[in-house]
Amino acid sequence: MVRESETCFPSLTRCFLSDRKSVIHLQINRGMVIYVCFFKGATDEILPKMVSTLLNLQLCELPSGKMTSVLELPGSVLIIPQATLGGKAKGKAMQYHKNISKEDGLQLYSTFVSLCEKELMAAIGVTGREAEVNVKHGTYGNRQVLMLDTNGPYTHLIDF
Amino acid sequence: MVRESETCFPSLTRCFLSDRKSVIHLQINRGMVIYVCFFKGATDEILPKMVSTLLNLQLCELPSGKMTSVLELPGSVLIIPQATLGGKAKGKAMQYHKNISKEDGLQLYSTFVSLCEKELMAAIGVTGREAEVNVKHGTYGNRQVLMLDTNGPYTHLIDF
Repeated sequence: MVRESETCFPSLTRCFLSDRKSVIHLQINRGMVIYVCFFKGATDEILPKMVSTLLNLQLCELPSGKMTSVLELPGSVLIIPQATLGGKAKGKAMQYHKNISKEDGLQLYSTFVSLCEKELMAAIGVTGREAEVNVKHGTYGNRQVLMLDTNGPYTHLIDF
Repeated sequence: MVRESETCFPSLTRCFLSDRKSVIHLQINRGMVIYVCFFKGATDEILPKMVSTLLNLQLCELPSGKMTSVLELPGSVLIIPQATLGGKAKGKAMQYHKNISKEDGLQLYSTFVSLCEKELMAAIGVTGREAEVNVKHGTYGNRQVLMLDTNGPYTHLIDF
């Protein structure tokens, strides 16, 4: 099982993720932020469906008010590994027993990022807007500084 | 049923929510952001438990690395109405059939905000740090500009 808290900002002004250790700055402009968490039992098999669903869902608003997908927009994607999404409250503390092991999670996360890049690049090929669109992603297992600047938070939760 | 996607930022630098219509700026510093969505069937009865659970969960990190609650910290709370959390993917579109009516949702949201204020103010009374701590909240039903600036996103999902 896999949990994604997907936030598509209709008019994301800026989204900025930096790694506190290595001072890498990742920045996307208009697009979607995906927080991803893998549970125990998740395998590679689920990844193509996850990527296809997330990138094709009509979560982005056009100036006309019509909804479209990040692939059709086309917009950028910032992927954030967010293991805390697998947490469960036990008394006053959060427990993370459902989460996949770090090693398996890293492998799934890496493949997920690659698949997103592949799908988005294929979409860009059609529109010829390479310079504006990209996939950026946080480093698995690190805490990272996040700055979001949006025209309206628009958060969805999708379990696979 | 009620869904909360609660994000406690261990060292939230800045969080900023503004209403695009009325140009009201809400800002908190160190603290927690709560995205709240009410489903059909939710009633007032669940609210005290929700507030108590959320404000007492150990989601905030002290400089020592030890975890504590936003009440014990004490920190501020920014509450964001986020009806999209109740969405379900149907094909390429999101549907929101599970969500409570706007009228009932507004009433629950208003009471939820009041209860949070009451609990946090009681906690501040103990520590005497009124100036640093407060509850801010977005306007129910409006899309609002959000800016987040954190030392690490730390997102949890809690269903009641």
